[in-house]
Amino acid sequence: MKQFTSVKDVQDVKTLVQEALTIKHQPQAHRDLGKHKMLGAVFLNPSLRTRLSTQKAAMNLGMDVMVMNIDKEGWALETRDGVIMNGSTVEHIREAARVFGEYCDILAIRAFPGLKNRDEDYNEEIFNKFIEFSGVPVVSLESATLHPLQAFADLITIEEHKRSARPKVVLTWAPHVKPLPQSVPNAFAEWMCQAQKEGMIDFVITHPEGYELCEKFTPGAQIIHDQDEAIKDADFIYPKNWSSYNDYGKILSDGEGWMLNVDRLKHTNAARVMHCLPVRRDLELGADILDSKEHSLVIEEAGNRVWAAQTVLKKILESSL
Amino acid sequence: MKQFTSVKDVQDVKTLVQEALTIKHQPQAHRDLGKHKMLGAVFLNPSLRTRLSTQKAAMNLGMDVMVMNIDKEGWALETRDGVIMNGSTVEHIREAARVFGEYCDILAIRAFPGLKNRDEDYNEEIFNKFIEFSGVPVVSLESATLHPLQAFADLITIEEHKRSARPKVVLTWAPHVKPLPQSVPNAFAEWMCQAQKEGMIDFVITHPEGYELCEKFTPGAQIIHDQDEAIKDADFIYPKNWSSYNDYGKILSDGEGWMLNVDRLKHTNAARVMHCLPVRRDLELGADILDSKEHSLVIEEAGNRVWAAQTVLKKILESSL
Amino acid sequence: MKQFTSVKDVQDVKTLVQEALTIKHQPQAHRDLGKHKMLGAVFLNPSLRTRLSTQKAAMNLGMDVMVMNIDKEGWALETRDGVIMNGSTVEHIREAARVFGEYCDILAIRAFPGLKNRDEDYNEEIFNKFIEFSGVPVVSLESATLHPLQAFADLITIEEHKRSARPKVVLTWAPHVKPLPQSVPNAFAEWMCQAQKEGMIDFVITHPEGYELCEKFTPGAQIIHDQDEAIKDADFIYPKNWSSYNDYGKILSDGEGWMLNVDRLKHTNAARVMHCLPVRRDLELGADILDSKEHSLVIEEAGNRVWAAQTVLKKILESSL
Repeated sequence: MKQFTSVKDVQDVKTLVQEALTIKHQPQAHRDLGKHKMLGAVFLNPSLRTRLSTQKAAMNLGMDVMVMNIDKEGWALETRDGVIMNGSTVEHIREAARVFGEYCDILAIRAFPGLKNRDEDYNEEIFNKFIEFSGVPVVSLESATLHPLQAFADLITIEEHKRSARPKVVLTWAPHVKPLPQSVPNAFAEWMCQAQKEGMIDFVITHPEGYELCEKFTPGAQIIHDQDEAIKDADFIYPKNWSSYNDYGKILSDGEGWMLNVDRLKHTNAARVMHCLPVRRDLELGADILDSKEHSLVIEEAGNRVWAAQTVLKKILESSL
Repeated sequence: MKQFTSVKDVQDVKTLVQEALTIKHQPQAHRDLGKHKMLGAVFLNPSLRTRLSTQKAAMNLGMDVMVMNIDKEGWALETRDGVIMNGSTVEHIREAARVFGEYCDILAIRAFPGLKNRDEDYNEEIFNKFIEFSGVPVVSLESATLHPLQAFADLITIEEHKRSARPKVVLTWAPHVKPLPQSVPNAFAEWMCQAQKEGMIDFVITHPEGYELCEKFTPGAQIIHDQDEAIKDADFIYPKNWSSYNDYGKILSDGEGWMLNVDRLKHTNAARVMHCLPVRRDLELGADILDSKEHSLVIEEAGNRVWAAQTVLKKILESSL
Repeated sequence: MKQFTSVKDVQDVKTLVQEALTIKHQPQAHRDLGKHKMLGAVFLNPSLRTRLSTQKAAMNLGMDVMVMNIDKEGWALETRDGVIMNGSTVEHIREAARVFGEYCDILAIRAFPGLKNRDEDYNEEIFNKFIEFSGVPVVSLESATLHPLQAFADLITIEEHKRSARPKVVLTWAPHVKPLPQSVPNAFAEWMCQAQKEGMIDFVITHPEGYELCEKFTPGAQIIHDQDEAIKDADFIYPKNWSSYNDYGKILSDGEGWMLNVDRLKHTNAARVMHCLPVRRDLELGADILDSKEHSLVIEEAGNRVWAAQTVLKKILESSL
């Protein structure tokens, strides 16, 4: 593996999930693999779970880790070419990426979308420039359009908790008070569509009209606008808010009736409910589900973030040996 | 030891102090004990000395450390149950504590009081919820009402520098321009009362009327309102400001006459003067005392913070083997 | 080596540069030297490259590292003696430096100038007090007047890329929109003057009238005000902005005509162009130079920051054995 920004960087997800489960049972087995190797974790936006799980994964592999909170250091990066830098940007991404590449063996980067200009966000300019200029493998800690380590951890969690050979997995839109990126649902859809193709699951998406995701991330997904119909007989449900892709970055409605609680799960197959966290209780998801040992998998998912990151870092380290 | 939030978590302080002094003379003797164990240090308020000394203590035990500055990440935690989270809080403590527990073997937490509502502060809600939900041992890096690692380091310092079997120790209120928490004096009083009970010291508290500490932390302490009378023949004096407990969080007076300097020490037993730091020179404590090798112990105390933290982490690691 | 704040702390730079190049080819050869030793990196101002390269250097030597971002922690230090601390400063440098010295074996410190009061800045009060009170070796990560690790890395880079026994090196003033410190040009001048004295290079400085550097840092340097004349036949050019030393901290002109681009290099000896970074493209330096593999050395310089720091830390560790 030379980079990790999308499911497209993975040969087959079934094997990758099995490798993650092996690592989970022997987390320290590869403590020498990353010896004297440096992971640079570059945050253009805040992070808690992602930073911790990635840092722990790197430490389990014996790597050294340096964290750069570019957002908090006030080190505004210029990404445009051909501009005279006499404004507020202090350093060009061409220099910054190259310098990070000098100091680090692998770069892990977080850069959220602006949600103002869809083309700009979906071009993934920052990621592509880091990949182009840094000269070292780049791992996404959530880009403008995808959050692949989250989706990988989600698939590990589904594999661990499935009660049938081919469970039904449903991604459902959920309400929120702020306009959120599409990166988590895009990545979840991308990974689940691939898992469906490999025969691991059946995948359904449900959302109000107007919240269609970008089609390139949903090949083969069944889309049903009636939420109750969509979640019927579901084994796993993934409620998540996102802002509109078509009316880019906008909140289209208050989403009344779209929040799930335990009562709404009665026609499912005793569905396990997932969320990437942080989750706003009783706004995105009923507190009764989050407090239910029978239904909630959100803590297990967060725990699996470590094994997703460790698997990816291990494969990249192995490729560069 | 399963947690460390108060002197009540300690079986006997005399033995604990001896263990700390042993560790101080062989800091690297237990470098394997914490191998592949993760300390998560969670700061809801800023920290310098406490972060450094705890981080160093953990490293001496071979632990990995991850620091989470929740105050600076702008990750507002919800602590109330049953609220619809449609405001400014981003994550509920139920999820946050559980996730930290997934990533870390021990959690060390700092959470200051608001100083607005006494019941809320003295209920230690944040600490109790972290203990309830995280599922791992919790160490206090200063809570709303106590700072036990500081008090433990203070007792180590007294033990090292005492010139008689049972020295006289005096906690005295000192002036300040801001309303400060009662956590340091509460913890010092709680530990000194226990040390007095175990026959290690004699303990006196002095403060202006109105600055009485919460009685549950001062069992057996002699309280004298005349500062000169209180410090007479003292071997150790601990000047510290705190805001009122009865008129909660308030500054009651400018404290004229309560600041100690070298001249004021003439009727003491050549008293050694202590402070948890940071200290405001010539406001809380005379600069002449701080600059006096004969009188000041403040740097020695700060140094002993490492051994206090290392002793506590060692005992918790041993309990979980 | 007992401290590193200036070229004056170095016995001879020629030998030091050779030692750095040896370390560069075997970065992990001294992994045991810093075992169980703590580097404290104290930032009173923000840092990216310096923090990363120093942290990596310390890790290569097996040291543990603790970073203190005092600027971001809001921990305002008092440096004046004899003041009653009833204002905004929270801790006196006398206590802070001593406490850092308790926790760390080496302190590395960054403290920029205020650019308001020249005497205050050029007295290097913060550095001198850290050296006086901390009781441990102090390394400059850029002070009010010097940035010696940068200049050392620059000299390593020149040594690696020189095409003649005694190359011509030119420091040239460059335009900027903000008033910048003199620390980088002062340090570059100080190191190049010493290198010239040791027969390694020939050194020329060029700048508009009014931008004269403090003379104590430029002994033996040739100063030429015509930029084209100065850079004629140059092997290495170091463009850098600085504010006025004489009219202290001021921008005297917009610097029209002083920015170099590839066309301006035609009468040089195919000069290699250097910069400490961050650099503002097409304001301080032409983007065409930065994007030219033939001319730009800025990434190599940034890479060499690691070896400069590692050499200095190694020598200090060896001195304290």
